[in-house]
Amino acid sequence: MTATASPPAPSALFTDLYQLTMMQGYFAYGLHREEAVFDLYFRRPPFHGGFAVWAGLEPALDLLERLRFTGGDLAYLESLGLFRPDFLTALRGWKFTGRVTAFREGSVVFAHEPLLTVTAPLWEAQLVETALLNTLNFQTLVATKAARCVLAAEASPHGGQIVEFGARRAQGPNGAVSAARAAFVGGAVGTSNVEAGREFGLPLTGTHAHAWVESFPDELAAFRAYAALYPDSTTLLLDTVDTLRSGLPNALTVARELRAAGHELRGVRLDSGDLAYLSRRIRAALDTAGFPEVKIVASNDLSESVIASVIAEGGRVDVYGVGTQLATAGGEGGGALGGVFKLAQLGGVPKMKLTGDPAKSSLPGVKQVWRAVGEDGEYALDVLTLGGAPREGERVSDPTNPLRFSRLPGGLTWQNAREVVLEGGRRTGTPETLQQAQARARADLARLPEGTRRALNPHIYRVGLGDDVAGLRDRVAEALRAHTGA
Amino acid sequence: MTATASPPAPSALFTDLYQLTMMQGYFAYGLHREEAVFDLYFRRPPFHGGFAVWAGLEPALDLLERLRFTGGDLAYLESLGLFRPDFLTALRGWKFTGRVTAFREGSVVFAHEPLLTVTAPLWEAQLVETALLNTLNFQTLVATKAARCVLAAEASPHGGQIVEFGARRAQGPNGAVSAARAAFVGGAVGTSNVEAGREFGLPLTGTHAHAWVESFPDELAAFRAYAALYPDSTTLLLDTVDTLRSGLPNALTVARELRAAGHELRGVRLDSGDLAYLSRRIRAALDTAGFPEVKIVASNDLSESVIASVIAEGGRVDVYGVGTQLATAGGEGGGALGGVFKLAQLGGVPKMKLTGDPAKSSLPGVKQVWRAVGEDGEYALDVLTLGGAPREGERVSDPTNPLRFSRLPGGLTWQNAREVVLEGGRRTGTPETLQQAQARARADLARLPEGTRRALNPHIYRVGLGDDVAGLRDRVAEALRAHTGA
Repeated sequence: MTATASPPAPSALFTDLYQLTMMQGYFAYGLHREEAVFDLYFRRPPFHGGFAVWAGLEPALDLLERLRFTGGDLAYLESLGLFRPDFLTALRGWKFTGRVTAFREGSVVFAHEPLLTVTAPLWEAQLVETALLNTLNFQTLVATKAARCVLAAEASPHGGQIVEFGARRAQGPNGAVSAARAAFVGGAVGTSNVEAGREFGLPLTGTHAHAWVESFPDELAAFRAYAALYPDSTTLLLDTVDTLRSGLPNALTVARELRAAGHELRGVRLDSGDLAYLSRRIRAALDTAGFPEVKIVASNDLSESVIASVIAEGGRVDVYGVGTQLATAGGEGGGALGGVFKLAQLGGVPKMKLTGDPAKSSLPGVKQVWRAVGEDGEYALDVLTLGGAPREGERVSDPTNPLRFSRLPGGLTWQNAREVVLEGGRRTGTPETLQQAQARARADLARLPEGTRRALNPHIYRVGLGDDVAGLRDRVAEALRAHTGA
Repeated sequence: MTATASPPAPSALFTDLYQLTMMQGYFAYGLHREEAVFDLYFRRPPFHGGFAVWAGLEPALDLLERLRFTGGDLAYLESLGLFRPDFLTALRGWKFTGRVTAFREGSVVFAHEPLLTVTAPLWEAQLVETALLNTLNFQTLVATKAARCVLAAEASPHGGQIVEFGARRAQGPNGAVSAARAAFVGGAVGTSNVEAGREFGLPLTGTHAHAWVESFPDELAAFRAYAALYPDSTTLLLDTVDTLRSGLPNALTVARELRAAGHELRGVRLDSGDLAYLSRRIRAALDTAGFPEVKIVASNDLSESVIASVIAEGGRVDVYGVGTQLATAGGEGGGALGGVFKLAQLGGVPKMKLTGDPAKSSLPGVKQVWRAVGEDGEYALDVLTLGGAPREGERVSDPTNPLRFSRLPGGLTWQNAREVVLEGGRRTGTPETLQQAQARARADLARLPEGTRRALNPHIYRVGLGDDVAGLRDRVAEALRAHTGA
């Protein structure tokens, strides 16, 4: 949406109205500078899967560094008739001054663990809830979807890559650009979205559309015209008329002509029909004709389950162009990641939300996330504590069911899974590149127990509460109930 | 995402790479100024429903009026190494100069009919495909979801309203702002999204969060503090501790105190638990205590089916805050609308895409959409022709199955369903307001056969091809097959 290399500053008004009315309330009652600790986490991985790939951290940190109220913002707020002059004046110099502790982008993460913790004056932490959730929920959702598609594609004995093709079905231009970014973190190798290419330096990829073929007297003329212009980067779309009877023979003609002129056809694309059957037939025809290097690209409402099914039936697709289901991460239990942002401590006092629904209770206190690595190098489980690493023999309980617990075995190496990435409102280091995030996702996925990576009915990776966290939760809940008689 | 009243100009690079490589090809072969006609349509309504509410037209027209290549855009394209200097120079003065014929925003629309037709030089029409689809697919999806929620809520004998609460789960800031806009077109009465409020003048709505309650010594103190600040606009969230045992009695105390001070509590909000049961209990308690005007707001992963179920069980919710499922329109067959943009004519010659999949074939020729109104004022069916209104007795066939046809009865009044909304690259009139679009949606939904409005297993509203359209399609397909031997 921007014509410059750097995206526009985020608007401080991209928030829910109640964040602003509560901010004014904290200000009015002198609570706004109390040190608040909020945790961002989700309660279920998306797609009924076993993991999520954490994405969106760098854009979230950008937002925290750059957020300001402009004169136009304040004038609009004043027009609502809800805000007092002294509060609006106080917003004039407002900025985010807090700390952020978080998983680095591309990390594989799980339900119930704090992915990002904000420690900041209450009115700062409250305002940024909406924008942080919007950024991190969506990018984590799409990166996870991309990783699921990549895992499906790589299960083929012949390998396979994912490219993102979804701009036309994405949710707004900015949704499309963000989706292309997150898909790359999750392992996609490129995108068709030119704006995303510019904004994030992503590799661009593309073929041609049916309209190209229809704009020439016949398909062969259209193929020849495209190849003449792009002799080293042509991928021909085969199904405008009939994939096997027209598209394939015309593509072979052009492949031979290109070779005669010292070039090679890069690929062919299938966009309808039985992708497993057609890709087998086309692979055989290309190989027989002496074109084993020509790639087969497939599109047409792909998802990880369609990819798995194409491979199961012997399909020979090299590149999957995943559109709608990647850019919106809809379908198969997706569409949104239900991340939340909950107060865990205020002015040094642990806080929790109890509610009538135990699964929606929050965890009080300032928590650390520890990840255990087994002797085989695989990740074994994650444990939340109020401080140091868990100890062998320590009791660890299920976050939603206190009756389920076990004692920690030995032989585990514990890693503090998160870092302080922002302090005093500024990043603690230089932003990571998307290549770093993508590499981290790939490495982390490789260290997951295989059952946890499975797309269907995965093994649930264990996240447990250390004894100190569980004890604090029980004491705070008890005090809340006693105080209110509930 | 913008700090000014007017959104930033759309980037010409928000497009798929292949649109640009094809544009260069049309330019290189002298085809770029050929007059092209492209139709935008979808093949299935979202959510397995019977209709869609057309939304996003005004933003799409904005985009067409303002699209330009900036110096930065051209520099990025040059850096890709795919584009020739003469082409890049030609893009310098490029703008959209064509015509758009479309349904007005808020119209109820159906599968297989051209919702928007672009008539423009080929290279202009080709470029704008991605951005048009992105805008219109998503906004139509969300407006349709909103209408489905509104229809569900209004089925209650006590009525009910929808507000949009989904910014934190939406797909990017701009996805959230666009969703708030589209939800309003579909009948939502407000949004929590402040940026959307500013950008589109939408009514803002909000309550407070659990963190507010946790920031005070107890729930009653938190309720009193909020009500003291906003004595005429307070909605209290009841479930931080326990809805019935703590939230409700504390809210009643505050309602009495507000009244004693000359104010009235506006509402209470439920965010967990059995919404039907809790809302009945709370309605009864509020009524008994003399507060029949206090509204009950409910949230917590609502959708049209949850709303219908709350009502079926006697729930007494007045306002449904629909978040994730409205802002992303995920779930229940949603997540994306599969609108496409297909070449129908080029240089006066009808064009079509055949493919191996009959459901993915396109309709050649320049078509008009005629809507029939029955003597009862209800919409009866839509018919596509190549010119004037259909005639009594004319044969009308199913767009995907030529074997299904019937003869048009008499007693129908025919309306030309679309208008020329852009000519020579400029709007033909002043932009409509969102209130006009919302009113049109409401009026159009009221004229739909009741079975077509149904959320589950709806009656399929008939869209038929006039004899001229079907005949042209058959002739073009036949010629294509003959030419290629397919």
